[in-house]
Amino acid sequence: MHLHVVHDRQMTYDGRQLAPHWIYRTFDLVGDAVVAFIGPCHVELSEMVDIEDVKADSPIFSPSMLHIIAEFFGIDLHLTVYRQRLLIIIARELLEEVTGQSILRRGDDLYLSRDDGMLGKLSVSIATSSPLSTLIHTGFNIETEGTPIPTVGLAELGVDPLGFAETLLQRYADELQDIWVARCKVRAVRE
Amino acid sequence: MHLHVVHDRQMTYDGRQLAPHWIYRTFDLVGDAVVAFIGPCHVELSEMVDIEDVKADSPIFSPSMLHIIAEFFGIDLHLTVYRQRLLIIIARELLEEVTGQSILRRGDDLYLSRDDGMLGKLSVSIATSSPLSTLIHTGFNIETEGTPIPTVGLAELGVDPLGFAETLLQRYADELQDIWVARCKVRAVRE
Amino acid sequence: MHLHVVHDRQMTYDGRQLAPHWIYRTFDLVGDAVVAFIGPCHVELSEMVDIEDVKADSPIFSPSMLHIIAEFFGIDLHLTVYRQRLLIIIARELLEEVTGQSILRRGDDLYLSRDDGMLGKLSVSIATSSPLSTLIHTGFNIETEGTPIPTVGLAELGVDPLGFAETLLQRYADELQDIWVARCKVRAVRE
Amino acid sequence: MHLHVVHDRQMTYDGRQLAPHWIYRTFDLVGDAVVAFIGPCHVELSEMVDIEDVKADSPIFSPSMLHIIAEFFGIDLHLTVYRQRLLIIIARELLEEVTGQSILRRGDDLYLSRDDGMLGKLSVSIATSSPLSTLIHTGFNIETEGTPIPTVGLAELGVDPLGFAETLLQRYADELQDIWVARCKVRAVRE
Amino acid sequence: MHLHVVHDRQMTYDGRQLAPHWIYRTFDLVGDAVVAFIGPCHVELSEMVDIEDVKADSPIFSPSMLHIIAEFFGIDLHLTVYRQRLLIIIARELLEEVTGQSILRRGDDLYLSRDDGMLGKLSVSIATSSPLSTLIHTGFNIETEGTPIPTVGLAELGVDPLGFAETLLQRYADELQDIWVARCKVRAVRE
Amino acid sequence: MHLHVVHDRQMTYDGRQLAPHWIYRTFDLVGDAVVAFIGPCHVELSEMVDIEDVKADSPIFSPSMLHIIAEFFGIDLHLTVYRQRLLIIIARELLEEVTGQSILRRGDDLYLSRDDGMLGKLSVSIATSSPLSTLIHTGFNIETEGTPIPTVGLAELGVDPLGFAETLLQRYADELQDIWVARCKVRAVRE
Repeated sequence: MHLHVVHDRQMTYDGRQLAPHWIYRTFDLVGDAVVAFIGPCHVELSEMVDIEDVKADSPIFSPSMLHIIAEFFGIDLHLTVYRQRLLIIIARELLEEVTGQSILRRGDDLYLSRDDGMLGKLSVSIATSSPLSTLIHTGFNIETEGTPIPTVGLAELGVDPLGFAETLLQRYADELQDIWVARCKVRAVRE
Repeated sequence: MHLHVVHDRQMTYDGRQLAPHWIYRTFDLVGDAVVAFIGPCHVELSEMVDIEDVKADSPIFSPSMLHIIAEFFGIDLHLTVYRQRLLIIIARELLEEVTGQSILRRGDDLYLSRDDGMLGKLSVSIATSSPLSTLIHTGFNIETEGTPIPTVGLAELGVDPLGFAETLLQRYADELQDIWVARCKVRAVRE
Repeated sequence: MHLHVVHDRQMTYDGRQLAPHWIYRTFDLVGDAVVAFIGPCHVELSEMVDIEDVKADSPIFSPSMLHIIAEFFGIDLHLTVYRQRLLIIIARELLEEVTGQSILRRGDDLYLSRDDGMLGKLSVSIATSSPLSTLIHTGFNIETEGTPIPTVGLAELGVDPLGFAETLLQRYADELQDIWVARCKVRAVRE
Repeated sequence: MHLHVVHDRQMTYDGRQLAPHWIYRTFDLVGDAVVAFIGPCHVELSEMVDIEDVKADSPIFSPSMLHIIAEFFGIDLHLTVYRQRLLIIIARELLEEVTGQSILRRGDDLYLSRDDGMLGKLSVSIATSSPLSTLIHTGFNIETEGTPIPTVGLAELGVDPLGFAETLLQRYADELQDIWVARCKVRAVRE
Repeated sequence: MHLHVVHDRQMTYDGRQLAPHWIYRTFDLVGDAVVAFIGPCHVELSEMVDIEDVKADSPIFSPSMLHIIAEFFGIDLHLTVYRQRLLIIIARELLEEVTGQSILRRGDDLYLSRDDGMLGKLSVSIATSSPLSTLIHTGFNIETEGTPIPTVGLAELGVDPLGFAETLLQRYADELQDIWVARCKVRAVRE
Repeated sequence: MHLHVVHDRQMTYDGRQLAPHWIYRTFDLVGDAVVAFIGPCHVELSEMVDIEDVKADSPIFSPSMLHIIAEFFGIDLHLTVYRQRLLIIIARELLEEVTGQSILRRGDDLYLSRDDGMLGKLSVSIATSSPLSTLIHTGFNIETEGTPIPTVGLAELGVDPLGFAETLLQRYADELQDIWVARCKVRAVRE
């Protein structure tokens, strides 16, 4: 599995990056891969893949996010939603380690208590399917000015986004590999 | 998915419960199910399914554990190892809530710092496959006297095992259902 | 599996209802579902999914039909063609019970003898695939005026379409559940 | 798909015929196949694969049955339970044609009204899985003396078992092929 | 599996033939099939499915090729890439028999030594996926005038293209059937 | 994929090596792997997995063979039979390069012309399935004294078995990886 963190530029996430072979076309990495980059997030309804959000008319906006895009060349979306959960969970574990703060997970969303007493949303995430692969996008707010709902960002938590991304991607790849090994090293049982 | 917590008796886990239809034969629940019960744990090498443990000659023993057995009537073990991780992760989240203590996850194992400064192992877990289903066993120490490695138990943490089990099973079932909904409510993307 | 019979309005079936998430977008039911509604049927060649019909230049028309749309969030079309057959077969069984008349099944089509001695076609049906689901449309003629081939309709058979639909959907859901239970309650065999 | 009706001898069905490669070893037919033969039926609990029957302590006995064994070299048991239903349904359709009597289907069982006013069970059926294939056994009573529950047999219905078997197997193979063609001749749809 | 060699006309391959149901729509063959025809090859970048070629800006041109199109109504592209390799390998074996010359295989490409000492490319090949099937295109140069890279053609090798196609398709179908039989005639093993 | 050639000892192949986790238990390699070793071959009927051979009562014997065992932690035997063919084909290509002799492939068997004018069998091969993996055994005769049918061996061809094995395993792993890349780097097509 290829890991790549973009250090030299910012890129906007507008939904069109959640596409088959976007990683291959952009970074020349062929096969399963996960990449991270920093940039604004602005997804119009027409690009949204979560029909629940479309029905609720909830476009996504953030002035600056750490974006994670993963592509798996297997077409079982159910499996990839599990992979998405695991990415969120590993991010939560890592952020709790780094910040010492308690982070709340609800499904595939992360939240923190804000100074104003409100719960701030830290992340957005979606998993979907393409004809030959399955894909994940997860975004972590860095700055939060102008977000349509109460949010928190990595900046106010004192977390360096790219350093966080480097560790997160490595732990994620290690965990996926560990899961595969767990699948391979057991004998089957029978009645 | 059937949920069942055994309140009225103790049952020993010796490995033979990690078998297809054990839940159906024992509790008359047919189809995907997860059950919890309390009892000693003593697995001989001949019953162990983790070949790594067999190679290391590491039998499993605990005087009293909370056991979780889950059976899924799908045969993709890779997917079920993801489900196993998620069970461990939800248990960790719930135990941190209940105890206020920080719990360390390494793969599918949970650890806590003990009073003697050592890291105590709280849980054991395995996932495997049968001809028509996949299965998970997870055990949480309740008492720890006589365990072959440093451990911690729910008793010393002040956690009521069956109450913990009731909540854990419900959250687990809810999360699996939520993952399925996440798989169903997105539109696909294309190049 | 969600069941829904539309009692309060008529809707035209023109082929665009055989689309992923049409049920979710229209009735807010997420996941496997089967819905029934009454309305005209008029499918242009451009909307037809059966290439045999396209090659034969056979558009579909009926002034009034009972339409069944089912969506399954699994992508095995072969399995869903079996599910389609079963829907037709259960409809046949139910109609024979209700009308006392003998109904002929040829593949996924139902026929009755008409008063003029001709065989009248009662139903149309198709199953297809979307990127994340598989889909079935089955239509039963209610009125038959203007149909391009000899047909029979539920009205002349004295069958109340919505009452028939309520029973059909319930029996269908029960049978699919029964099939799943049959898959889960057997032990495997070996050489 | 190979079709074979045994005309020259009787064979007892005791459950051990529901085994992978039994058809290949016995009739030298390799690959998907369905065979029919006549003989007694006597299945001990230890050979039964339906755990519900085992739990109910319901051994199977018939002095003379028409037995159908089918083996499919695909391992999706869910699909093969659909194939089993279809075999029962085609048998029902054919028997209604041949006898002019009304036959009741409940799941994978067929029943007829007997002269004594009771409902007589005509058939038994099971589908299961082997490591590399899935299997079906269906038995139709010919004689019914000594059966543990009220039954009916093909003999009292005036049905020639082997002639019935020849037609049933041919129609079954035709329907499975027709289902495959239905899967191949449609174009996919999208959102 | 349907086999068809077009003897009565030439057809250009421009990439649009690598489409689901193109064989069914063109030759009325429904289900798995492999067809061969002669004609020019000219694939614009917009029709190319190999993203590596698109990135390298390498359009494909040949004045006259023997084209093989295969469609398999299963959606596992990984399996179909194996089927593609096997088609190339059988072609190589057959061409070595017919010409007595040594042919080099590199992945899914075939090469021969040319009189000028250069290695000439004989073939192009690609496998891809459609919503309900997987597809292969393989082209063997007949004439080579104007090709953008050093090539060899069947004409200069003295090979009759359509006779070669007839034998190739037959051997290919036989090998795929032989592979299926090999899968069906073994018993499973266990630990 | 792990590659391992045993240089320091001989091991007999008696069929029990074609078992799940034999590679893991013997060489401590977990996950997909292919290993090669030298030793006698003697497979009793009770250990044979090819039922055709069992029916023909054809035990396998060779005084000295190069054995290849591969295990893939996926359960699709059909795919693994393709992988088996490819192993044979790469062996054939490599042997032709090394020896300059022409080698005949019939399915998964390799043959050479012997000095006595007979065709000598060089190899045996089988692929099968275990509960959690699929497996290949291929053996190439080194010495041929006492073999029950006309054979040829690597020794008389002047081929160093372990050197041949090192190259074969490397090419095989490269080809499987190349096939995976081919699956990942194409875009899908549609109607």
